[in-house]
Amino acid sequence: MPAYVLGHKIPDSDSICSAIALAHLKNSIGESAAPARLGELNPETAFILDTFGLEAPALKTSFAGESVYIVDHSDRAQSPDDLSEATILGIVDHHKLGDITTSAPLECWIRPVGCSNTIIKEMYDYYGIEIPKAIAGIMMSAILSDTVIFKSPTCTPLDIAAVEALATIAGVEDAKAFGVEMFKVKSNVQGTPVRELVMRDFKDFDMGGKRVGIGQLETVDLSVFDPIKADLQADIARLKAEGERHSVCLLLTDIMQEGSELLVVSDDLSLVENAFETALVEGRAWLDGVLSRKKQVVPPLEKAFA
Amino acid sequence: MPAYVLGHKIPDSDSICSAIALAHLKNSIGESAAPARLGELNPETAFILDTFGLEAPALKTSFAGESVYIVDHSDRAQSPDDLSEATILGIVDHHKLGDITTSAPLECWIRPVGCSNTIIKEMYDYYGIEIPKAIAGIMMSAILSDTVIFKSPTCTPLDIAAVEALATIAGVEDAKAFGVEMFKVKSNVQGTPVRELVMRDFKDFDMGGKRVGIGQLETVDLSVFDPIKADLQADIARLKAEGERHSVCLLLTDIMQEGSELLVVSDDLSLVENAFETALVEGRAWLDGVLSRKKQVVPPLEKAFA
Ligand SMILES: [Mn+2]
Ligand SMILES: [Mn+2]
Repeated sequence: MPAYVLGHKIPDSDSICSAIALAHLKNSIGESAAPARLGELNPETAFILDTFGLEAPALKTSFAGESVYIVDHSDRAQSPDDLSEATILGIVDHHKLGDITTSAPLECWIRPVGCSNTIIKEMYDYYGIEIPKAIAGIMMSAILSDTVIFKSPTCTPLDIAAVEALATIAGVEDAKAFGVEMFKVKSNVQGTPVRELVMRDFKDFDMGGKRVGIGQLETVDLSVFDPIKADLQADIARLKAEGERHSVCLLLTDIMQEGSELLVVSDDLSLVENAFETALVEGRAWLDGVLSRKKQVVPPLEKAFA
Repeated sequence: MPAYVLGHKIPDSDSICSAIALAHLKNSIGESAAPARLGELNPETAFILDTFGLEAPALKTSFAGESVYIVDHSDRAQSPDDLSEATILGIVDHHKLGDITTSAPLECWIRPVGCSNTIIKEMYDYYGIEIPKAIAGIMMSAILSDTVIFKSPTCTPLDIAAVEALATIAGVEDAKAFGVEMFKVKSNVQGTPVRELVMRDFKDFDMGGKRVGIGQLETVDLSVFDPIKADLQADIARLKAEGERHSVCLLLTDIMQEGSELLVVSDDLSLVENAFETALVEGRAWLDGVLSRKKQVVPPLEKAFA
């Protein structure tokens, strides 16, 4: 029976590509492993897999009785609901340390870098395993996605070096140009239901005992959201009520302007205003320079909710 | 201001030697770091530092406002009381993943091996930093201690390889023979107050909401405890009452016979009997083959308390 390698709920490109890359590495060192996904592929991830000719991992949401490797998260809110009934063999992640615990020793490769795939690149090097061309391509893509083509404050020299090495293996001449193509796919919102957009990259957090949902949409041109901004606001209000959330934030991130428009609904808007030292107008504010949910949005909110 | 590197409360040799070794590595790669200890040195650790001519880390128990690296544990019960007011930069550990969480990304080097110093050896290799002779000596000693000279079921080929490499650097010809000398020091109980013996290597665990204390004394000859066994039992009963614990276990581990005599006081002895599938006689039982608290004592107890 293989160990499953799984990322977080509402998978992003890093979660999917890490699962594939780590499963391949484990199989290469003699441990049977298979990638899994907890939800639908987003259009960016579908584009990446399509570009490099790889299949999506099988959809699997229950892991009771299985052995698993966790990638790209370490908190229960983002894990399978029955994770406590699985045996966690390891965690590869680049976020803050979450509330997952284990009852046996495990391996954790957690680093303060921009992307889980940067760490998996380090693991391939550690074990001296060659990265197949297609897998190098998806690893490179995930790093470009998570670091917003190196613009995010989460990006480190290790991420840039990993992309350079992976691009060479994958035969991609201009990794940054490929990244812009990828973000254009991500920016395409036409014809997509509003709920699907809001949920495309949405994570729930426990902040001082309150449930806070934070979604993020990245675009190369913020004006694509103009016709649907009111609909997005109405939808996050519904999402707040449905999930008994204290607050829901949606970041509309413009990677060219390098900042995010924040849309908020909350039981206490002043908490959010205090977190970002800004005044909300009709539940909106422009956060200049804010590109990273993990590094620039979650920490100030957690502080304000503490 | 340096980052402090600290092990667990009631420090064992691994906690002290890891703190020294990791602080040296961090300084070598340009990060200012200083080792700290949360409590008194035990006789084994004092012997190790004395043998290789190194100073004990400074005693420090409060870390509010400081940056820290955590070694040899990942749970709050074993951490400084004000850890939540410190910034955790990283964790190096070989136990099950505990309940420490962070509010920012960090580095975790956690591996299912026999000793934290085995992982720190890997880190020195990763960064290409030479290990000074004395530090190699204490790292080797800690691995011999944690793995009970390779006899513990927690011992892995990586631990043995690390000891071999470190012994060469330290100029120790026969690492195993050195280990036996070290365990003789550890076995010396004459003239030591009973409470001091019980606390020499004592850890509290949260098991299904109950506080369970587990101490361990390792010896090369179990009979050294014969004259004081009744006193040890009386003392763990006091310790149970003082700390509002549900249970206190004390393992008297004979590393030559390869097993442990278990002494127990508990609000529910049957839980402990179920955990080890054994009958207690006057609160005692011989657990054949049991050398590792982490791998052979904590998991069955946790299961029984769940
Ligand atoms: Mn990621
Ligand atoms: Mn240890």
